[in-house]
Amino acid sequence: MSAKRLLVVGAHSADFVWRAAGVIAKHTRAGGEARVISLSYGERGESGELWKVPGQTIENVKKARHAEASEAAAAVGASFESLDLGDYPLIGGREAIDTLAEIIRDWQPHIVLTHPDKDPFNPDHPVAHEVVSQARLLTSGAVVEAGFRTAPPTEFLVFEPHQPELCGFVPSVFVDITEVFEAKKEAMAAMRAQVYLQQYYTERAEHRGNHARKVTGDKEIRQAEAFQRIVPNVVGAL
Amino acid sequence: MSAKRLLVVGAHSADFVWRAAGVIAKHTRAGGEARVISLSYGERGESGELWKVPGQTIENVKKARHAEASEAAAAVGASFESLDLGDYPLIGGREAIDTLAEIIRDWQPHIVLTHPDKDPFNPDHPVAHEVVSQARLLTSGAVVEAGFRTAPPTEFLVFEPHQPELCGFVPSVFVDITEVFEAKKEAMAAMRAQVYLQQYYTERAEHRGNHARKVTGDKEIRQAEAFQRIVPNVVGAL
Amino acid sequence: MSAKRLLVVGAHSADFVWRAAGVIAKHTRAGGEARVISLSYGERGESGELWKVPGQTIENVKKARHAEASEAAAAVGASFESLDLGDYPLIGGREAIDTLAEIIRDWQPHIVLTHPDKDPFNPDHPVAHEVVSQARLLTSGAVVEAGFRTAPPTEFLVFEPHQPELCGFVPSVFVDITEVFEAKKEAMAAMRAQVYLQQYYTERAEHRGNHARKVTGDKEIRQAEAFQRIVPNVVGAL
Amino acid sequence: MSAKRLLVVGAHSADFVWRAAGVIAKHTRAGGEARVISLSYGERGESGELWKVPGQTIENVKKARHAEASEAAAAVGASFESLDLGDYPLIGGREAIDTLAEIIRDWQPHIVLTHPDKDPFNPDHPVAHEVVSQARLLTSGAVVEAGFRTAPPTEFLVFEPHQPELCGFVPSVFVDITEVFEAKKEAMAAMRAQVYLQQYYTERAEHRGNHARKVTGDKEIRQAEAFQRIVPNVVGAL
Amino acid sequence: MSAKRLLVVGAHSADFVWRAAGVIAKHTRAGGEARVISLSYGERGESGELWKVPGQTIENVKKARHAEASEAAAAVGASFESLDLGDYPLIGGREAIDTLAEIIRDWQPHIVLTHPDKDPFNPDHPVAHEVVSQARLLTSGAVVEAGFRTAPPTEFLVFEPHQPELCGFVPSVFVDITEVFEAKKEAMAAMRAQVYLQQYYTERAEHRGNHARKVTGDKEIRQAEAFQRIVPNVVGAL
Amino acid sequence: MSAKRLLVVGAHSADFVWRAAGVIAKHTRAGGEARVISLSYGERGESGELWKVPGQTIENVKKARHAEASEAAAAVGASFESLDLGDYPLIGGREAIDTLAEIIRDWQPHIVLTHPDKDPFNPDHPVAHEVVSQARLLTSGAVVEAGFRTAPPTEFLVFEPHQPELCGFVPSVFVDITEVFEAKKEAMAAMRAQVYLQQYYTERAEHRGNHARKVTGDKEIRQAEAFQRIVPNVVGAL
Repeated sequence: MSAKRLLVVGAHSADFVWRAAGVIAKHTRAGGEARVISLSYGERGESGELWKVPGQTIENVKKARHAEASEAAAAVGASFESLDLGDYPLIGGREAIDTLAEIIRDWQPHIVLTHPDKDPFNPDHPVAHEVVSQARLLTSGAVVEAGFRTAPPTEFLVFEPHQPELCGFVPSVFVDITEVFEAKKEAMAAMRAQVYLQQYYTERAEHRGNHARKVTGDKEIRQAEAFQRIVPNVVGAL
Repeated sequence: MSAKRLLVVGAHSADFVWRAAGVIAKHTRAGGEARVISLSYGERGESGELWKVPGQTIENVKKARHAEASEAAAAVGASFESLDLGDYPLIGGREAIDTLAEIIRDWQPHIVLTHPDKDPFNPDHPVAHEVVSQARLLTSGAVVEAGFRTAPPTEFLVFEPHQPELCGFVPSVFVDITEVFEAKKEAMAAMRAQVYLQQYYTERAEHRGNHARKVTGDKEIRQAEAFQRIVPNVVGAL
Repeated sequence: MSAKRLLVVGAHSADFVWRAAGVIAKHTRAGGEARVISLSYGERGESGELWKVPGQTIENVKKARHAEASEAAAAVGASFESLDLGDYPLIGGREAIDTLAEIIRDWQPHIVLTHPDKDPFNPDHPVAHEVVSQARLLTSGAVVEAGFRTAPPTEFLVFEPHQPELCGFVPSVFVDITEVFEAKKEAMAAMRAQVYLQQYYTERAEHRGNHARKVTGDKEIRQAEAFQRIVPNVVGAL
Repeated sequence: MSAKRLLVVGAHSADFVWRAAGVIAKHTRAGGEARVISLSYGERGESGELWKVPGQTIENVKKARHAEASEAAAAVGASFESLDLGDYPLIGGREAIDTLAEIIRDWQPHIVLTHPDKDPFNPDHPVAHEVVSQARLLTSGAVVEAGFRTAPPTEFLVFEPHQPELCGFVPSVFVDITEVFEAKKEAMAAMRAQVYLQQYYTERAEHRGNHARKVTGDKEIRQAEAFQRIVPNVVGAL
Repeated sequence: MSAKRLLVVGAHSADFVWRAAGVIAKHTRAGGEARVISLSYGERGESGELWKVPGQTIENVKKARHAEASEAAAAVGASFESLDLGDYPLIGGREAIDTLAEIIRDWQPHIVLTHPDKDPFNPDHPVAHEVVSQARLLTSGAVVEAGFRTAPPTEFLVFEPHQPELCGFVPSVFVDITEVFEAKKEAMAAMRAQVYLQQYYTERAEHRGNHARKVTGDKEIRQAEAFQRIVPNVVGAL
Repeated sequence: MSAKRLLVVGAHSADFVWRAAGVIAKHTRAGGEARVISLSYGERGESGELWKVPGQTIENVKKARHAEASEAAAAVGASFESLDLGDYPLIGGREAIDTLAEIIRDWQPHIVLTHPDKDPFNPDHPVAHEVVSQARLLTSGAVVEAGFRTAPPTEFLVFEPHQPELCGFVPSVFVDITEVFEAKKEAMAAMRAQVYLQQYYTERAEHRGNHARKVTGDKEIRQAEAFQRIVPNVVGAL
């Protein structure tokens, strides 16, 4: 039997690190495959530190971001690639959707993670949601055979945005990432252009751990990540 | 290790049958324990057929409802009891909450199922939700030791109401009940006072099966039940 | 065939005037019967002008409010009565619900109108909603015969509150009251203790008329009232 | 006086059948005119059975879908046409909107029906909603004369999607289709490429009939269709 | 210290008058600067009166609208300009966003006001919201230096639409415009092509004044305007 | 002129510390008065550490909680008192409402802060909201003189719950508490029975500080508290 495949799509190259590195590590440690695709490198909107370097060029910034994100992905057992569509603004539209749809048809992920559909603080995150959502729908096979190449339907969840309440984010599932938290920290440490977020998301993971303890009474949980399901999942029993 | 315990609380004695008999059967077949508590017998509002019998008395109606519900519960491997609080209107309040809280402290369920908090077609269902919700919160142990006898926190979900959209019900999880559907049909057949609902909920289970197939692409699913989580669950991986 | 019966329930004796006098007049002019029940006289919270009279007593205030409301109801062809349950706070609860339920069983209205379930500016309006909502549910006959005296189900709508957006009010139907607007003005003029609201609700009716013109293109509409359906209605065709 | 005109716009050629064939039949039997426009034939996403035929071509699929949909429309007294814009993905945008707007200006419908604006299971339904919604707004005449050719405003409703709760669909009106249900069955039978949906939507109509009975107490209702109003309607009385 | 800058962006040249002229006047009287930008002149959809003039041309209509809006803006101390992008439909998209973003980068407003994101009665208002929202996000500086020219973040609010409840508008702040109401009336009087709205919005301001009195108990308030914050504001104390 | 009065009402004696100590300190440092009322001491549900002391009694626990809360309140310049209504469950109802209403009539606060109306993790917080909400409404004077002793209307906000998204909490205003954060830390340090929350809420204040920086671009903000307005406020200008 082939491994379970997890696809994580971010608008910028570092999004997956803060929001999903833990769940990726849990997935790959359990024998699953994980693939990170960033629609852009976040070379304009999220690379402020890199632009402080005198004589900096956009190609250098992208190269640096690619190296950092690849290192971060490796720390949690995932591959990294970028569609390099540009950021601030990220342009979605037909071509981006088709490219991603083709990737989904080829790789056939079981689970897809991306940004929520709303973010009053970021112009690119909702665009990423729309691209992923459309690509996923275009490839989902109906129960009968459809008239085009399809992939099986996937679970579909969004990861936690920076200001959850203002993005309409309501957690429906917490993933306990206690046992892989060192790997997440390593992934975060690789994002040298956004060093100020490492402490924030370490604390955030501990807060979500607190919430997960409260929900379960399980005192062993230290860190967690929160996700919201966009479509229900199907289980054999509760 | 002790079995996993599922507590299902309905306003009336038949509610669990239409809305959760399948998930109960899946639970008990997997070695879990299931306990059904109805806050009333539904002796006034949902026993129209029984009242057509000449000379009918309320005690007889309750006895008949008790027998039917016990038979239905047995068909899916659960026990049945009623708090006999009266229906139309079901009166909630402190005493009902305390009684249920004491049951929760004693039995320590892992999962609690009940009605949604809103139902513009039934006066008793929201009362049941409130009673269960309060009893559950009063017994949940905090992470530190609290100053009174507690039970571990439980998963908390609501089952499907009769007119879901108008009750604010949005499914967050489908349970595949295909392999136990004969048991659910047997449970439904036991509710002889509400025979007209058997066809309705057979078809409804098949429709939810259709939805679950659509979500997963798994053509083996024939019947399902839908539930909405009130608090997130915690998992080890997606 | 008997006339169509419209029941309007307000928390205070003047509520029906501002919010539903037009639809009452339309109803009675078309041959229907209309009955206004106020749960209290609004003798404390909405009778400020009357309390300015030296030596005023609560019984006098109620008497004055009764006379005004009866006159207003008569202006639109309805009867008026008050359950005199007291205001600020209006106490709902079992007895109030049972009294109203008994009225519904006896009178068997086809349509019930009351306040929305939320009002951050008034302590009594949500109580009135709860009383009406419970009374209505306790009396609605199920499709099979229930074990107690019932009335046929009714249409159920809420009328417009003073600050609609903050009460969660979203209009689902506008009633054109152009041809009875003089009667509504007469009803409003009868509420001498709240004279400052007459201009407000005259203008409000004209604004809703503007909205109704916008929706239909019908330039003949001058005044309208807005209502929100709580349960769907059933029609023979759109 | 000219007949009342009902315009039903679907993303794919069969959408109107499952979701609105009953209300169309009621409309035409009452002397109204009904026109069905499908933005695409659903030739890729909803024609799986047809693609099983060896040597199948897209032109043949469209031809078959056209024939089926025309037959179904005829069964309920409506005309059928397709804008043939392609499906999976249906491309909306300016040209599609202008084409539909021109049709609305010419035909001047009184009522417009289409899909809800959200569907996490279908990429084309929300696009259809957007096209219809924009075309309708571009043609609605304001109360004063506008600077371009307009049509009178229309009632605007959405029909029931396949998984209502997950599409944000909340019924605001049920149409009793009991007396035309044989015609709806005939229309469904014409959709030979989607035979598996005929049973589903027969049962669904009966469930909505159950809901409509519950709302009214009218035991004569057997089947119904559910719709949600997007803008309020205006009536002469409740 | 430089003056506080308020940017008001409307879809059509008159929008700012009905919805924000009061707050503009308060702002400029307090020494702030205000700039009104209309994305179009509303030359097609909102200039019905002008088109009644025999031989009217679109250039004349725009010229008249420009003159009126400039006069109205002057009455409340603001400048007026139009991007002249065309209306019914207003076309948003990349170019419009970039133009507005460049203006924001140059002028660096402290507060931005525009339409809500939803309006089931107008095709252009949501487009305007999207353009403003994107332009604002593209220019907001992150906490670290970003890789492109930015402006400081702004407060972001939407003004009141014509049918608030159906546009999802919920007021979060009322601005007392009593002392500048004569200026708002003067601004409204300048919009000679939409004379029928002057009475409507005069009364509306008085109704909002009534709401603001109710909220504060301050009997001096006569007129107010209502706004909804899209992102929280930050204050030094409540 | 008398000082501005801030009333903070919590279900348990420590609630004000985690959720509002900063805004209280800002208020009192600016010359305002602040009064904290806890409906109970949280002696059962939130005093786990105290119950570990051998031979502990409920009176001792309350005494300890009173001392801690008084010390915490003093640290931010407020007074503390408890209505001692009991916790887990906190019983609201008429008497509690009347007691608080009388306090409001006597003290006439300008601003009232309490818990949100929903909390799926705590049985007492929503009860506290209801008590405060009703007491506030019963005392608010209408614009005309009402028939009973009133207080002027107050601003009404809710403070941040422990799991905001699941309590329906959406921040509408951030208060910058940077300059008083040492005082908040001192207040938190006084709550020796809940030491584990001090780190959590220190970090939370820093996260809200991050959000407030993002909203304003003001890099001086280090810590903030988040609040949601229940009724709009009225301002002289934006």
